Amino acid sequence: MTSRTVIAIDAMGGDRAPEIVIEGAALACARNPKIHLLIYGDEARVKPLIDKYAVLVKACDFRHAPDVISSDMKPSLALRQGRNSSMRQAINAVAKGEASSVISAGNTGALMAMAKVVLKTLPGIDRPAITSIFPTQIGECVMLDLGANVECDAENLVQFALMGAIFCRTVLGVSHPSIGLLNIGAEELKGHDEVRTAASILREMPLPGEFFGFIEGNDITAGTVDVVVTDGFSGNIALKMAEGTAKLVSYFLKKALKSSIRAKLGYLLARPALEQLRSRMDPRRYNGAIFLGLQGVCVKSHGGADSEGFANAIGVAFDIADRGLNDHIREELARHYGIMDQLNGTSSDDPFAGID
Amino acid sequence: MTSRTVIAIDAMGGDRAPEIVIEGAALACARNPKIHLLIYGDEARVKPLIDKYAVLVKACDFRHAPDVISSDMKPSLALRQGRNSSMRQAINAVAKGEASSVISAGNTGALMAMAKVVLKTLPGIDRPAITSIFPTQIGECVMLDLGANVECDAENLVQFALMGAIFCRTVLGVSHPSIGLLNIGAEELKGHDEVRTAASILREMPLPGEFFGFIEGNDITAGTVDVVVTDGFSGNIALKMAEGTAKLVSYFLKKALKSSIRAKLGYLLARPALEQLRSRMDPRRYNGAIFLGLQGVCVKSHGGADSEGFANAIGVAFDIADRGLNDHIREELARHYGIMDQLNGTSSDDPFAGID
Repeated sequence: MTSRTVIAIDAMGGDRAPEIVIEGAALACARNPKIHLLIYGDEARVKPLIDKYAVLVKACDFRHAPDVISSDMKPSLALRQGRNSSMRQAINAVAKGEASSVISAGNTGALMAMAKVVLKTLPGIDRPAITSIFPTQIGECVMLDLGANVECDAENLVQFALMGAIFCRTVLGVSHPSIGLLNIGAEELKGHDEVRTAASILREMPLPGEFFGFIEGNDITAGTVDVVVTDGFSGNIALKMAEGTAKLVSYFLKKALKSSIRAKLGYLLARPALEQLRSRMDPRRYNGAIFLGLQGVCVKSHGGADSEGFANAIGVAFDIADRGLNDHIREELARHYGIMDQLNGTSSDDPFAGID
Repeated sequence: MTSRTVIAIDAMGGDRAPEIVIEGAALACARNPKIHLLIYGDEARVKPLIDKYAVLVKACDFRHAPDVISSDMKPSLALRQGRNSSMRQAINAVAKGEASSVISAGNTGALMAMAKVVLKTLPGIDRPAITSIFPTQIGECVMLDLGANVECDAENLVQFALMGAIFCRTVLGVSHPSIGLLNIGAEELKGHDEVRTAASILREMPLPGEFFGFIEGNDITAGTVDVVVTDGFSGNIALKMAEGTAKLVSYFLKKALKSSIRAKLGYLLARPALEQLRSRMDPRRYNGAIFLGLQGVCVKSHGGADSEGFANAIGVAFDIADRGLNDHIREELARHYGIMDQLNGTSSDDPFAGID
């Protein structure tokens, strides 16, 4: 028997769970025979769904979890009362070493809070960051944080830069990624203290890539850099603004292509090409945000994702586990803090002691 | 002779100044005979350009200004050394009451710094906000701040909400505008202190409209609210992310429509409709950001705008002056602070005393 990558699934999270989750799980298993799933959820609801897919029955173990974390539950409450939930049980599977990664389409705040408490952050990382891949005019880029940390200090941003660069190298295969700090102007004087201090640190320190400097919002889709670093507030707003704008343009496009008989004829002819465009911009392709910086892989699927989107999120979790992303981040952090200690002639616990 | 609205123009600001500026000025005057311009710039360069347009010669006065504020000059330096610049002279014309508004496509930071010092903020407003109109799926919305204030406290955000609502009523004609605070989740618990405190104030206070609550990035283009309030850091990133995403989608669209002979034929048929789409999304239509909250109208044209874009910015300045936007804001602020004083039984100078 070939070696398999075990992934824990929270079957009860997401707008149309558990149906969509199980359908997506079956899709992912059909595509990749190396995947084995541990599925957590309410037996009465989930087991019959699993039994509909022969490919899934062979590729999963089901484990009953009586409770569900609702989408509006406060993270603190989820932490206290969610011990028997499918989400918590799936995270526990990673902590126990039974699975390499966990995926949920449920409550983001609760997932982050539980994952932080159960899995802990990697040594040298203070806070995990929500990370995703973004399409650009020349390929793809990695962006973080997309919403985990409303406020970030300079050290958080520097740690995001390190993790993002290793992610970009490991997952996108860019050997020497360029790193940009999101700001509102390219000049050194612009922006708030945190982003300017982070820039001055990144300019001086050894990096698994190259610090490009400040970038602006329009640089993200232009592909100016491989890794976009920002705080979770701006990052989340930018992400959702991009989703909204893409929707707006396609809404206007549809209206334009229905505006006359001539336009409708043109649309009929161009349809196969436009379908390609649709598939290229398909948010499902980019479904699966990673909580980067944890001792274990935790992937968040969009709550509204369909089965195709959920299958892609499973694919993301597989890739990350398969390529040993966290081992690469651990090595880089050890190397980085080693160099910093040497440079500073100290063995301080503070990774940024002496740099400012 | 009919009454005319006098607008001061900085002819030397922008990537292709003064040529584009004068071309745009001529366009605006040809379209609207009620406009009279005071054009400031280097006589040797600007006068010959003006003389090319008979319509402009009749509708403007030219005034020589020897100095130019360069696009990379620091605002503090521009303040100290820019007294004889075309930008400063044009702002002075508003302060002296010679013009109702000023437009520049030059250095944003310098323009904001000079306008603040020369024109001063409206009573009750601590900081001006860069404001613009944004297309949505169901019409248009007003968004502020788009980059003037990197960090904003709750009071700044509340003042932006008041000014944005009056702007929306006066310029877009929405009698009872809905106001949304940009955040990373709709729940009351989300976001940083400033945005949560601002929300709790806006929920309680009388408004020239209705407080909708928190909105997310994708709500902006969906048209969820009429007025989007945010700090200048997130606002600028959102604005530029929208520009970048619109470019990305049209880049993918062009590629798709060239991908086969069939697609090319379809494009030929659909072209008139697609041109309509292009004109609808044309950033030139939305050129002209207003520095809201000053005692005088100051409009910033995009530095890369062409003459059509610059003419639109002049149109924006005309509309705002013509409709007495600042008088409406003054009245609303007086009314608002009067009510607040009554509610609090105080006549405190602090407009937010007693509310928290």
